[in-house]
Amino acid sequence: MNVSERFREGDKRALARALTWVEAGLPEGRELLKRLRGQGTAKIVGLTGSPGAGKSTLADRLIEGIRARGETVAVLAVDPSSPFTGGAILGDRIRMMRHHKDDGVFIRSMASRGALGGLAGATVAALNLLEAFGFDWILIETVGVGQSEVDIARVADTTVLVLTPAAGDAVQAFKAGVMEIADVITINKFDLPGGERLVQELKATLEFAPPRPAGWQVPVTTAIAAKGEGTQALLEAIEAHHCHMVAHGLLEAHRLERARFEVVSVIQEWGRRSVQDDALVRQVAEGHLTPEEAAERLLREALQAAH
Amino acid sequence: MNVSERFREGDKRALARALTWVEAGLPEGRELLKRLRGQGTAKIVGLTGSPGAGKSTLADRLIEGIRARGETVAVLAVDPSSPFTGGAILGDRIRMMRHHKDDGVFIRSMASRGALGGLAGATVAALNLLEAFGFDWILIETVGVGQSEVDIARVADTTVLVLTPAAGDAVQAFKAGVMEIADVITINKFDLPGGERLVQELKATLEFAPPRPAGWQVPVTTAIAAKGEGTQALLEAIEAHHCHMVAHGLLEAHRLERARFEVVSVIQEWGRRSVQDDALVRQVAEGHLTPEEAAERLLREALQAAH
Repeated sequence: MNVSERFREGDKRALARALTWVEAGLPEGRELLKRLRGQGTAKIVGLTGSPGAGKSTLADRLIEGIRARGETVAVLAVDPSSPFTGGAILGDRIRMMRHHKDDGVFIRSMASRGALGGLAGATVAALNLLEAFGFDWILIETVGVGQSEVDIARVADTTVLVLTPAAGDAVQAFKAGVMEIADVITINKFDLPGGERLVQELKATLEFAPPRPAGWQVPVTTAIAAKGEGTQALLEAIEAHHCHMVAHGLLEAHRLERARFEVVSVIQEWGRRSVQDDALVRQVAEGHLTPEEAAERLLREALQAAH
Repeated sequence: MNVSERFREGDKRALARALTWVEAGLPEGRELLKRLRGQGTAKIVGLTGSPGAGKSTLADRLIEGIRARGETVAVLAVDPSSPFTGGAILGDRIRMMRHHKDDGVFIRSMASRGALGGLAGATVAALNLLEAFGFDWILIETVGVGQSEVDIARVADTTVLVLTPAAGDAVQAFKAGVMEIADVITINKFDLPGGERLVQELKATLEFAPPRPAGWQVPVTTAIAAKGEGTQALLEAIEAHHCHMVAHGLLEAHRLERARFEVVSVIQEWGRRSVQDDALVRQVAEGHLTPEEAAERLLREALQAAH
């Protein structure tokens, strides 16, 4: 049997192989995706929040909670590529590995390779594969640095913002515009001082926030993920949001947004690749070509090369 | 006299008008830029660091220091657009406004409108205008959220990373890969506890960092910007880096990188605009088209529309 057939039969090694294909941008991956697209009905949950908020520990607890219900879950852990090393930050994620032997759990780390940062198109392709494989839940976790957080909200059905009572955490989320994209807010490390006050502040703030689609009220839950407390409440909040989306026909719009994101990612990637042409860039730097003229020329070449 | 002529004669109102043109993406702005490009020899300094690190206060002090030398300076303050409100965060920047009556100072706030976050092409166009206008120095400041920081390093000659002794500040910079793009590190709010330790930690870390172009050693300076302390040392560190770049022929590479950034931004923007086509995106979501096929079709249409 080939990878595609084994994939359909639920072979996780075939899934791993297919993920490698899409991560490397190989045609085999595109071919497989084309045939699988639109299958699956996973609840796609984005976990966002500053580094140190405990997203990985929370993901680990969510896996427990989801498995306790007898449902399956995949985790996509996305690391921003360092511009120099391209290295992935593993850190706390090692904890999640204890689930690796559980057949209902699949965990994959990916380096974000977005042309200009943020989530890469390959990440969304990976998401599509995981969904087609038939998982009940997919958690996407990033090291929260700005653009990735906004991107997650575009591709996930439900975006969970993880905050802690630590000073400045909420302020940074506000400044980065992340507060506005959260569907559910959870305050982790709730045993630290200042937790109750943060809950009150958030609730007061949310009263004056722009209204959400179909009147969704952003819930604020609390958790101490390290002790396993608060997972149940968070899972229920996520499911409530999912039900809200289904009830108001909002899921479809999210799927469209995800496809849009993929198309834009492809264009970005082509742009990034083609702009390696130093002679052309030099003409722009010296004022002989406008950036628009150079872009046009590059795209024409890229389109010709595609055939 | 038209705007272009008044611009050449050093009329700041003409500069303000031209900046509005490029910010709005008007053809008048492109036309003007085409004729002005490559002029000017400003030292372009990017200020990056987490919100609350005191970048605006530091910029305010740098203005003082630069003016005390009899040199001119423009400040470009870039705000990440909130995905919902598109709003700009002014905050501490109001302090800088005290320089507004000084003819050797020009301050402009811009909302970042990057297709997928980060610095927009319009920002680089604005930078080119400010340079052509003849400022000796240009400071670019962003609200530090990930991608903008990496982008700044691409377009600025010297990137200053502003940290504070506050817990987690340096760790976050590391995780976001920002430490690797800093040419100069300054620890602001040095009167807070932990400053000396942070200096030692940074120096130890920098010893094991990947080598910089032509053997540049990243200096760590300290400052208490609110009291005006440390500005001189920071200015000297920036100038030392500038001299290093000139001496080793590295400035030219930076100008090329800036032009490259502009071209990629144009391609991104075209991609973002064209992908509003919902019928096409729906075909991708439903698996009738691959993202690559959709991207190709959109680009062909965009190129045709350009004529």
